[in-house]
Amino acid sequence: MSFPRCEQTRAWASLQGHFEAHGRGFDLREAFARDPGRFAAFGIDAPEVYADLSKNLIDIATRRFLLDLARECGLEARRDAMLAGAEVNATEGRPVLHTALRAPRGAGPHGDEVHGVLDAMLAFAERVRADEGFTDVVNIGIGGSDLGPQMVVPALDACAHRRLRFHFVSNVDGHDIVPVLRGLDPRRTLFIIASKTFTTQETMANAQVARDWFLAQGGSDIARHFAATTTNVAAAAAFGISTSFGFWDWVGGRYSLWSAIGLPIAIAIGAEHFRALLAGAHAMDRHFAQAPLEHNLPVALGLLDVWYRNFHGFGSRSVAPYHQGLRRLPAYLQQLEMESNGKRVAMDGTPLSLATSPVVWGEPGTNGQHAYFQMLHQGTDVIPVEFIAVKTPAHAHADLHAKLLANCLAQSQALMLGKSTAQALAEKAPTASASFDRAALASARTFPGNRPSTTLLLEALTPRSLGALVAMYEHRVWTSGALWGLNSFDQWGVELGKALASALLPRLASGDVAGLDGSTAGLLQRLRAPAP
Amino acid sequence: MSFPRCEQTRAWASLQGHFEAHGRGFDLREAFARDPGRFAAFGIDAPEVYADLSKNLIDIATRRFLLDLARECGLEARRDAMLAGAEVNATEGRPVLHTALRAPRGAGPHGDEVHGVLDAMLAFAERVRADEGFTDVVNIGIGGSDLGPQMVVPALDACAHRRLRFHFVSNVDGHDIVPVLRGLDPRRTLFIIASKTFTTQETMANAQVARDWFLAQGGSDIARHFAATTTNVAAAAAFGISTSFGFWDWVGGRYSLWSAIGLPIAIAIGAEHFRALLAGAHAMDRHFAQAPLEHNLPVALGLLDVWYRNFHGFGSRSVAPYHQGLRRLPAYLQQLEMESNGKRVAMDGTPLSLATSPVVWGEPGTNGQHAYFQMLHQGTDVIPVEFIAVKTPAHAHADLHAKLLANCLAQSQALMLGKSTAQALAEKAPTASASFDRAALASARTFPGNRPSTTLLLEALTPRSLGALVAMYEHRVWTSGALWGLNSFDQWGVELGKALASALLPRLASGDVAGLDGSTAGLLQRLRAPAP
Repeated sequence: MSFPRCEQTRAWASLQGHFEAHGRGFDLREAFARDPGRFAAFGIDAPEVYADLSKNLIDIATRRFLLDLARECGLEARRDAMLAGAEVNATEGRPVLHTALRAPRGAGPHGDEVHGVLDAMLAFAERVRADEGFTDVVNIGIGGSDLGPQMVVPALDACAHRRLRFHFVSNVDGHDIVPVLRGLDPRRTLFIIASKTFTTQETMANAQVARDWFLAQGGSDIARHFAATTTNVAAAAAFGISTSFGFWDWVGGRYSLWSAIGLPIAIAIGAEHFRALLAGAHAMDRHFAQAPLEHNLPVALGLLDVWYRNFHGFGSRSVAPYHQGLRRLPAYLQQLEMESNGKRVAMDGTPLSLATSPVVWGEPGTNGQHAYFQMLHQGTDVIPVEFIAVKTPAHAHADLHAKLLANCLAQSQALMLGKSTAQALAEKAPTASASFDRAALASARTFPGNRPSTTLLLEALTPRSLGALVAMYEHRVWTSGALWGLNSFDQWGVELGKALASALLPRLASGDVAGLDGSTAGLLQRLRAPAP
Repeated sequence: MSFPRCEQTRAWASLQGHFEAHGRGFDLREAFARDPGRFAAFGIDAPEVYADLSKNLIDIATRRFLLDLARECGLEARRDAMLAGAEVNATEGRPVLHTALRAPRGAGPHGDEVHGVLDAMLAFAERVRADEGFTDVVNIGIGGSDLGPQMVVPALDACAHRRLRFHFVSNVDGHDIVPVLRGLDPRRTLFIIASKTFTTQETMANAQVARDWFLAQGGSDIARHFAATTTNVAAAAAFGISTSFGFWDWVGGRYSLWSAIGLPIAIAIGAEHFRALLAGAHAMDRHFAQAPLEHNLPVALGLLDVWYRNFHGFGSRSVAPYHQGLRRLPAYLQQLEMESNGKRVAMDGTPLSLATSPVVWGEPGTNGQHAYFQMLHQGTDVIPVEFIAVKTPAHAHADLHAKLLANCLAQSQALMLGKSTAQALAEKAPTASASFDRAALASARTFPGNRPSTTLLLEALTPRSLGALVAMYEHRVWTSGALWGLNSFDQWGVELGKALASALLPRLASGDVAGLDGSTAGLLQRLRAPAP
């Protein structure tokens, strides 16, 4: 399949003209005043997720041109090819089939393998859950072998096993594992070593520390207290592990929470809930595969990302989950989006002439409101915000939940509406200095408004809705990556640092700085100097 | 005092010319090759913190022009005025004296008040530490009443009390407090209610939940199990609290961890270590106040921030603490920097013509390497990275620590050096597809390099060095804010959302959407609709 690069399409030229004529000066407040149907026109009802896109800097024409762009770039055919198992990760010669991990039995490619491992993994998870000898589960993994479970387990706290505590060790820094081990009883702990190759530097170093600690504390039954999620069963066996669950090279690390890497999730929430997580993701997969582009949520969001990044020039997007359980979602999305689309060459190796992945960042609301929202409202850069609201809480504090939702709605409202200097001048600000110039104060209390946001709405945060939400993000990242023409599934950019770290390790021991740049040499010498 | 706006100075014009001639095309690799003394020339030895600035896109001329800018803008006089207690937070008519909180007894303004509260607060902290009836401490606060303690307590885990567990509840979302309460014994828990006014919506809602839970679980002695850090002693007393520690309106929330707000820190690490934290900050204050501008670390970093933001146009900075204990430092810095400098008008109310606070974001290394570092190395935007390395760990795993440090050095090295296409072509990539075009693959494996970073080096992460590090950030944020001519100490941008949330709360109950924009009305109706 060959399709034009997005910036060489007719739609791109149309978008450029449209941006100059109507995009740059677009005003959200006027758009709502002009069109009473705007909310309905820019809402998308996808499985488990309702998205309000109406507070974005787009109109019907923007959407039409963006959809033209998607069609000219062959988005549908490319999506279908990915879902059918084509080698879309071409630099590594691999298909990309995380969608197969959540296909129902008998429905997806590699179904026998997938469901074989899934059944075995879930059976093991249920045995651990039922085993009163265990109180703590420690997942040792990094990147894709860490962030998925680390994000999902607290998100689904409401249905998590109550006897078991979950810990996530990832960093090669000993200050990560040491405080975790301090609180553990070796006789009541299960360690999961999560590494596709069973060679990841950080994970193997921490696995070794965990095993040494286990043995030093009088532990003996490694086969009972350690399990592995890896494809390298032989290496796991050499470590003393007899319980291993595998996955496949068509599952990228940052798309792997649905695979055996999800074992800590399965232990936390149990087999039935884990299957619901998969079913939610699968429902979103079907939507992505089948919904017309204009009602296709991942596609609509991916197109919006291109519009903001390449026409408006916005360099980052802030994610504000109004649910404390989703506190690690921004970190999860950082890997998903920035590792997938933080690339500078097209699939054919030619440099891209446009900006790709933005920075994705954020903290849960309402916490962010008391930290960096000042900048979102009154800073000099426009930063689109993505609000995630959950209608029904998993607790009984209805008053707290009403306050939470009121805050979530109020923030997107405030970003859009702003406050004029005249309004500010008419108000009395309680903490304002009486001697400060009134006009200058009103100016400081002015909000420009017209700042865009998207609100994603879930009925409740359940395994099913979380599965759908995460799958939505996966396909959205694919959409913008596909339009930019890059390979969202390799990660060559992590190689150089690894190689240089291996070369520096013996130099830190020996002090040899020959051939190093002056800064690296100087820092290395300082790190080796005797304490002052 | 009146000084020119930075963009109207002669130095600014010089910087513009310099940027066009030497800045835009500056190459770090050539700069190191040209100047063997570069590392020494761009190193700054501040109290407890050594900073290597040599891997930044600056040369001697850049530094000279930036220092000229600082002088033309009257930076020294303005710093001195702030430290002397002038009302530099002019919109609120307040002095800004967080530095007074860490001045030694008898040395700073408001010394009697400061040391009076400090002594009482530390005595209370020691009583709690010695009281074997307590096992858990829960801090309920948000923003500046949360992020400081929440950041410092895990950072100083090595010297933290071993019997006591610390919890931080901030979000008005009930999914924050509910899982915390689940694990607590009311007879063994101390709640600290942290709110300057004792009226913060989130904090009061959570305090109420905590008290209700405490009473429902059979707790009765509220005076023993609740304390407050607040200036509103009457409201705390009405709540049932008899132990309150106050602070003053010249302490901004995001600068308050040194005040009574630091109570959870003091309980965690004890009085002596808390005094060391203050002493470290004070040492940095002295450096900031006295070191010549060219060797003044906070000033050098603030000037660099202006150079990157306003000349290079970089929109964000990534903070990478290579210490798991500093995992919440990026969140802390988000508030410190983005709430202080995320402003769009100058002190006199006139709009600024230049970009102010960048987005600050990051995760601990090595975790980030397995998540978003792909984008830092090969994305289309240049994002300066700030590495924080600690020479001596607080644990005995020397092998892990060597790996950690090698990774830290390797990342800044890789960002700078990059990898040419010719190099990539000469290598064999293990996971590369054999059938993929070799030249295209080499292009995908190319790193442009020349990406800037700063490395901050601490001997060890101790109360004293952490105090110095945080104070360094405070003064750095002040420096860029002062050059931009804005008020770093107000936060009018948080007001509008609060007001709109109050207005929406009764509407969520009643369903009244009259006068709302279509999106807010539509979302509100969806949030009120019966479950499907």
